[in-house]
Amino acid sequence: MISHIGLVGLGKMGNNMRERLRRSSIEVTGFDPRPEVSDVASLADLVATLPSPRVIWVMVPAGEPTRGVIDELGGLLTEGDIIVEGGNSHYAEDQERAAELAERGIGYVDCGVSGGVWGLENGYGLMCGGDVAHVETLMPVFDALRPEGPREEGFVHAGTVGAGHFAKMVHNGIEYGLMQAYAEGYELLAAKKDIVTDVHGTMKAWQRGTVVRSWLLDLMVKALEEDPGLAGLDDWVDDSGEGRWTIDEGVDNAVPLPVISAALFARFASRQESSPAMRAVAALRQQFGGHSVKKAE
Amino acid sequence: MISHIGLVGLGKMGNNMRERLRRSSIEVTGFDPRPEVSDVASLADLVATLPSPRVIWVMVPAGEPTRGVIDELGGLLTEGDIIVEGGNSHYAEDQERAAELAERGIGYVDCGVSGGVWGLENGYGLMCGGDVAHVETLMPVFDALRPEGPREEGFVHAGTVGAGHFAKMVHNGIEYGLMQAYAEGYELLAAKKDIVTDVHGTMKAWQRGTVVRSWLLDLMVKALEEDPGLAGLDDWVDDSGEGRWTIDEGVDNAVPLPVISAALFARFASRQESSPAMRAVAALRQQFGGHSVKKAE
Amino acid sequence: MISHIGLVGLGKMGNNMRERLRRSSIEVTGFDPRPEVSDVASLADLVATLPSPRVIWVMVPAGEPTRGVIDELGGLLTEGDIIVEGGNSHYAEDQERAAELAERGIGYVDCGVSGGVWGLENGYGLMCGGDVAHVETLMPVFDALRPEGPREEGFVHAGTVGAGHFAKMVHNGIEYGLMQAYAEGYELLAAKKDIVTDVHGTMKAWQRGTVVRSWLLDLMVKALEEDPGLAGLDDWVDDSGEGRWTIDEGVDNAVPLPVISAALFARFASRQESSPAMRAVAALRQQFGGHSVKKAE
Amino acid sequence: MISHIGLVGLGKMGNNMRERLRRSSIEVTGFDPRPEVSDVASLADLVATLPSPRVIWVMVPAGEPTRGVIDELGGLLTEGDIIVEGGNSHYAEDQERAAELAERGIGYVDCGVSGGVWGLENGYGLMCGGDVAHVETLMPVFDALRPEGPREEGFVHAGTVGAGHFAKMVHNGIEYGLMQAYAEGYELLAAKKDIVTDVHGTMKAWQRGTVVRSWLLDLMVKALEEDPGLAGLDDWVDDSGEGRWTIDEGVDNAVPLPVISAALFARFASRQESSPAMRAVAALRQQFGGHSVKKAE
Repeated sequence: MISHIGLVGLGKMGNNMRERLRRSSIEVTGFDPRPEVSDVASLADLVATLPSPRVIWVMVPAGEPTRGVIDELGGLLTEGDIIVEGGNSHYAEDQERAAELAERGIGYVDCGVSGGVWGLENGYGLMCGGDVAHVETLMPVFDALRPEGPREEGFVHAGTVGAGHFAKMVHNGIEYGLMQAYAEGYELLAAKKDIVTDVHGTMKAWQRGTVVRSWLLDLMVKALEEDPGLAGLDDWVDDSGEGRWTIDEGVDNAVPLPVISAALFARFASRQESSPAMRAVAALRQQFGGHSVKKAE
Repeated sequence: MISHIGLVGLGKMGNNMRERLRRSSIEVTGFDPRPEVSDVASLADLVATLPSPRVIWVMVPAGEPTRGVIDELGGLLTEGDIIVEGGNSHYAEDQERAAELAERGIGYVDCGVSGGVWGLENGYGLMCGGDVAHVETLMPVFDALRPEGPREEGFVHAGTVGAGHFAKMVHNGIEYGLMQAYAEGYELLAAKKDIVTDVHGTMKAWQRGTVVRSWLLDLMVKALEEDPGLAGLDDWVDDSGEGRWTIDEGVDNAVPLPVISAALFARFASRQESSPAMRAVAALRQQFGGHSVKKAE
Repeated sequence: MISHIGLVGLGKMGNNMRERLRRSSIEVTGFDPRPEVSDVASLADLVATLPSPRVIWVMVPAGEPTRGVIDELGGLLTEGDIIVEGGNSHYAEDQERAAELAERGIGYVDCGVSGGVWGLENGYGLMCGGDVAHVETLMPVFDALRPEGPREEGFVHAGTVGAGHFAKMVHNGIEYGLMQAYAEGYELLAAKKDIVTDVHGTMKAWQRGTVVRSWLLDLMVKALEEDPGLAGLDDWVDDSGEGRWTIDEGVDNAVPLPVISAALFARFASRQESSPAMRAVAALRQQFGGHSVKKAE
Repeated sequence: MISHIGLVGLGKMGNNMRERLRRSSIEVTGFDPRPEVSDVASLADLVATLPSPRVIWVMVPAGEPTRGVIDELGGLLTEGDIIVEGGNSHYAEDQERAAELAERGIGYVDCGVSGGVWGLENGYGLMCGGDVAHVETLMPVFDALRPEGPREEGFVHAGTVGAGHFAKMVHNGIEYGLMQAYAEGYELLAAKKDIVTDVHGTMKAWQRGTVVRSWLLDLMVKALEEDPGLAGLDDWVDDSGEGRWTIDEGVDNAVPLPVISAALFARFASRQESSPAMRAVAALRQQFGGHSVKKAE
């Protein structure tokens, strides 16, 4: 039974996860390139520290960083060891990487992790993909990370390798849609301040008994408490890649995603200093109707 | 302090609300045109039964039925009495009606009620609009209906007359967006059954710790438990009018509602036997490219 | 056979229409509140000038101004006269007004007019609604205004009163969608300037032979010729009301309008200094993930 | 000066292009796997037939078929020869293939071809990408294929290799949006047949003078002439891949494409026997409100 694992990447997420695991008496040796937070000096040291079969949880940014760590670990680990990719890799990359590692007898489990900065206290929602045997080996780790309550309400073995990140990707796509839905409703309420005199109180009152109650609503209420009118924030919204992948998958699988795509496109638009498309529409209106336009400053 | 009210309309919602009020020791005299469920024989009888100042809660279908009941009550009630419109009236109608009743000294409070069939046990989320004095008078009724917990998490006096139904309308608009977001995610998960082998389990695992956890998600999980694959349902989705009003308000107030409108339009499309628009696109493709089309059967 | 009509409203559209009618030997007496452009001093003078049965074409801004002119004309005209509402009235207002005037024997024809500033030379696309007899009376006027070529390619008697403005409203809704489609394509081309080195030339090359050729495309090419990169314009796009009505009609008739609504909402968003909805999404992301946001300046 | 080229692929498009080239006195040797339409027996024969430097225009389905032909040609052609990829390849594949062929001194020009079955008579809209020298060599071929009129209104050298197909992809994305815009407008007109009694006549009247006049509108009118009410067609709309790529590019480049994506998703939805997403929404409504649903048959 696993009681000691390695954890690569001690950023905002990794650091909290190490803490939560330790609270559950799972020994964690953490590695991070920043010596001031790292428990060991190198990946090689990390591997040397762990009992066999080794379990190493990778929690670094998706893409090159994750690829680099896993490639290096692939050269250090041996048959029977397991890598858990807990970051936000694309599920197709999971499949490629698992196939490579399998040739050398190294297990690979992908695990989508939800919960953000709240996970340390609330536990993390976990969705994983991989072989049954690997998942069973890792179960003490998953149990330590997931929220209190029935296991199946905070953890799933969703399918074969890649299923965990596919599920997390869809989770994030849904999240985009949910956030935009609340945001549109908020804007409409706020546009009618002549009659709706208490926008914050209205959303607060949705927290119990209503159909729209949710954790995101709770956060919305909290945000409005801290900054009524949200005047302290710019209307600039980043996106982290998983929303984009969700649309790509919808397109590939001919699944209509009107809401999730609208939410993603609203974010793109929010980051534009000036929209070339809307300049084009303005230009067309000027051409055919002499309609009023605004000159660029 | 109000301890006895009238309740007009004993359908699915009204009946449960009467029950919940009675459990809180609020006396309720209910009227419904169906004698087998009604406590009195007529609106006039209802008015005669109530202590002064009278409070009558109207819980009948929006539009003509609500208008009819309130008009009749207007002729029966006297100065100082209060009508609570608990149905789904349009907020502009509330404003008209309140103005008419105010001329005769009768109070009018509009109250959006959320919670559906679950409200009897969970309590109802309440959003009301009207004069402070009227709302204060009604507070024992609101407290009996709303969920347990802090009052402000299940009840709000949102603003002037109409604000309650405006808030409820926005609530429902958001609801459309939320439901469509989960539905799109569900479809995408289900489209990848080669790797995501447990769609139900995946959504179940989102119930704790994740960003998308919500009451609607809980219902989605419940629905999938009862009917895996949702094979027993047709893909036909009704809409109840408040989603439409939400879009109308967005249009009137120049508030962009891409997500809520996409959710509404998906419902419209779901009810079409054959889409004239898509026949038109098929016709265009056939015209310019000799592209494959399907002949109507 | 009509050879002399009155024309109320000598703005950008009305003035050009008067000129085009005169070129076709239709006598036009124009009235406008601005004496410097008006042929007569008042509506009463206008009515007095015209031969019986009188035809008066109204070409003033929709809403109050149009209502005012038609109400006044209703008091001046007599049985057998005809009013043509050539502005952008809502079709339901046409129906109300026609019914009122019909009581006094005055005819009413609504006519949607398309073509903008180009209409003087190209002719105006005309869609009208009303009684067959009225439309036949007006035909010399319609023939003078419409483009050269077969009558049915630039003029239609679309149906009963209101049909002309309903058709024009739909025309404008389509126009919103078309413009946004070109605009999105333009932005995508312009985003790939590393390989597409000639965006203007690319759109110019679509003018002949391609599926997307159209008059709007010609205008887009012209705009890019005059201002490559459209750098001289702000990305601020007004809307004139008919796009909004189109969405309202879609909502009322349960017709899905995903493209036209997206085009309208893009315009709304283009005019916002700061989007409350996107501030809300930013606030949510900050709450759950400590994600990067931008502080308002 | 090129006066004799090879043409691979004699399907609907290729066959018409051969005919149009021959009418312009360009000699064309065509190859197709179907002997009954082919001028030569094999690609090798085709290459042997052509004068040096050889020009071979490839007009076969995108993906494997195109890849196969170009790979084989790569082995048969020699330095100074040029391949024109006239199909619908993805621009990134153009770039890969051009790089491979360049190593062996073989030129590669990608050319998007628009016009469908109408191209034979009207000429084809052409957008190409590649080296200036190659494009100049090919100009007699392009001039024969493109529509009458100024060269720059039916042909563009849009940029480096890939630019032609990128431009064609965007062209098709725009086309999706335009078609959906007309289709939505058509449906709304048809939904108001109580007042708009002549839907076909209305769209016909938009052909001259209006802002929405276009070639697609002409086709729409033609389709309505041939099949009033479009009753003979199913509401099933295919998509050919380039609309999908357009969305992928929008997502990759953070370009909001609300209209083009809505048009694509409407096509996806049109092909679903039963929408899993809408079954999910129906299930949710049933769960919380006991709302009416339809059971699957």
